[in-house]
Amino acid sequence: MSNKIDVQDKIRVGIVGYGNLGKGVELELKQNPDFHLEAVFTRRNPEDLETDKALHISELPKYKGIIDVMILCGGSSTDLPEQSNEIAALFNTVDSFDTHAKVPEYYENLNKTAKKAGTLSLMSAGWDPGLFSLNRLLTEVVLPEGKTYTFWGKGVSQGHSDAVRRVPGVKRAIQYTIPKEAAIKEVREAGEPDLKATEMHDRECYVVAKENYNIEEIEKQIVNMPNYFKGYHTKVHFITEEEFDKEHTKIPHGGMVIRTGTTGQNGSDNRQRIEFNLSLDNNPEFTSSVLVAYTRAVYRLAKEGETGARTVFDIPLGYLSPKSPEQLRKELL
Amino acid sequence: MSNKIDVQDKIRVGIVGYGNLGKGVELELKQNPDFHLEAVFTRRNPEDLETDKALHISELPKYKGIIDVMILCGGSSTDLPEQSNEIAALFNTVDSFDTHAKVPEYYENLNKTAKKAGTLSLMSAGWDPGLFSLNRLLTEVVLPEGKTYTFWGKGVSQGHSDAVRRVPGVKRAIQYTIPKEAAIKEVREAGEPDLKATEMHDRECYVVAKENYNIEEIEKQIVNMPNYFKGYHTKVHFITEEEFDKEHTKIPHGGMVIRTGTTGQNGSDNRQRIEFNLSLDNNPEFTSSVLVAYTRAVYRLAKEGETGARTVFDIPLGYLSPKSPEQLRKELL
Repeated sequence: MSNKIDVQDKIRVGIVGYGNLGKGVELELKQNPDFHLEAVFTRRNPEDLETDKALHISELPKYKGIIDVMILCGGSSTDLPEQSNEIAALFNTVDSFDTHAKVPEYYENLNKTAKKAGTLSLMSAGWDPGLFSLNRLLTEVVLPEGKTYTFWGKGVSQGHSDAVRRVPGVKRAIQYTIPKEAAIKEVREAGEPDLKATEMHDRECYVVAKENYNIEEIEKQIVNMPNYFKGYHTKVHFITEEEFDKEHTKIPHGGMVIRTGTTGQNGSDNRQRIEFNLSLDNNPEFTSSVLVAYTRAVYRLAKEGETGARTVFDIPLGYLSPKSPEQLRKELL
Repeated sequence: MSNKIDVQDKIRVGIVGYGNLGKGVELELKQNPDFHLEAVFTRRNPEDLETDKALHISELPKYKGIIDVMILCGGSSTDLPEQSNEIAALFNTVDSFDTHAKVPEYYENLNKTAKKAGTLSLMSAGWDPGLFSLNRLLTEVVLPEGKTYTFWGKGVSQGHSDAVRRVPGVKRAIQYTIPKEAAIKEVREAGEPDLKATEMHDRECYVVAKENYNIEEIEKQIVNMPNYFKGYHTKVHFITEEEFDKEHTKIPHGGMVIRTGTTGQNGSDNRQRIEFNLSLDNNPEFTSSVLVAYTRAVYRLAKEGETGARTVFDIPLGYLSPKSPEQLRKELL
């Protein structure tokens, strides 16, 4: 694709929120020359942000008609539920809302708002939910008699890291979720085993303890924490702050969706297996990449007059690409 | 999903062609209770087919208005180019046309016919083209600065097996395409290596020779065959007919689409990798499964009034599932 697209022909976007995800989107837009970043909106003092595009979020409504799609980069626990409806009332939006249990409610609200406003809002466009969801759907329809497994990791779980940091005596902490090799092997080779979550993943914590705290007590509190660690095989490593800074400041992640099933005659042993596998050096930057690709689809579908809320299940993949349908058929089919 | 769908509420389909693919579709429909198989159309004597649904292909036009979608299961070299337009003039169709080089021409013809007839035709809905194409597109848009690799195998290549069978002195033969482990490892670990096709795959042939032929001469002719084997590392095994019947009558296949790329700051080493991987005991049955899932989408989109030709790039994945959008969001997002 040529880099020489006139600004007026580009997709004009705004970023709302400038944490890891928002920064990742800003970088990813540079890899996609059909976009123009108009502004980054923040609740903080714009001058504190390391970007010359920063504006206070109170300026956002002024950009109606100027920005085609707002890319919402806030967190799923409070930011997105608070912001998404207000912004969708003015702009097309895309977000990576990832609280699985609240998806139906979030969808209903967003759909109502966007329908009424005549805007289009795509939710949950990351990798899980997002690309993993697409693969759960695709593999299920292709192998209706089968079973789907989702493995996460090896990677940093922010939720579990936060939980460890709340334990008294913990100064710094990071938690890695690690898929059990034996479980992956069993899924690949042994038909459709029944596996509990605790049988699919291990947990590994690296902790810098505060002085004068008993590390055995800290470890006990971590491994017995209900919902987060209890029932899992959890290893806790106590390390120095120097080692923490040297080895544990990256945010890798990944995982796999595996579906295994059978086709053919009843009782046939024609086993078919589909795997979708991610191996990511940087988790938020990858989520940003997905967001940007789906922003292109939102822009196009909105131009065609579509309104309301959408998920990745509703979007033909061709809409994600800057290439023409002819090019796609010729080069990628 | 309930098995108790009234016949009049089912998607009524016909199968055209009753080779491995047509037989696979017939079996796959049994795993999908929202379908009703009305008839199997053949150019052969219908009484010779091992199905009670067989009809001569000359009966096909009579089923206009009775059959919702025709699933075309002929071969891509001659059957589909000959049949698809004639049938698309009367019915919605789905096929797995897989001659990559002829995709644009095939699309144009089909699109013209279907547009004129007010029918909808989905082409190239198998695994390559098909699911692999979807993943080539998806991974390219998510990682624009990167490189895509397609590996095939381990599996039987019909084209290469046919080529070996044309060598004088060959009585029976099968060819397996085998991805090179070292090449997969290089792609996974070493950035974005430049790899020629011959550096990505090996070829392995199992041959039953006719009596009185020189097997060294046969081997020489195979390994030096231009386009098919020349330049590849090819192993030829001469075996007995008994061993051939015992070990080489299955049709496994598979392969992977890998894209590896970087995100973040220019020159960052945040490498991200996406893999889509198939491991199939039975290649035509898996293609059949994909065809059936896309038949559901064709039925629905045609009901919404869509006409013309489509590829997998044009279909929202939600249309493939018998589940409602609410269910999909709740269960699979």
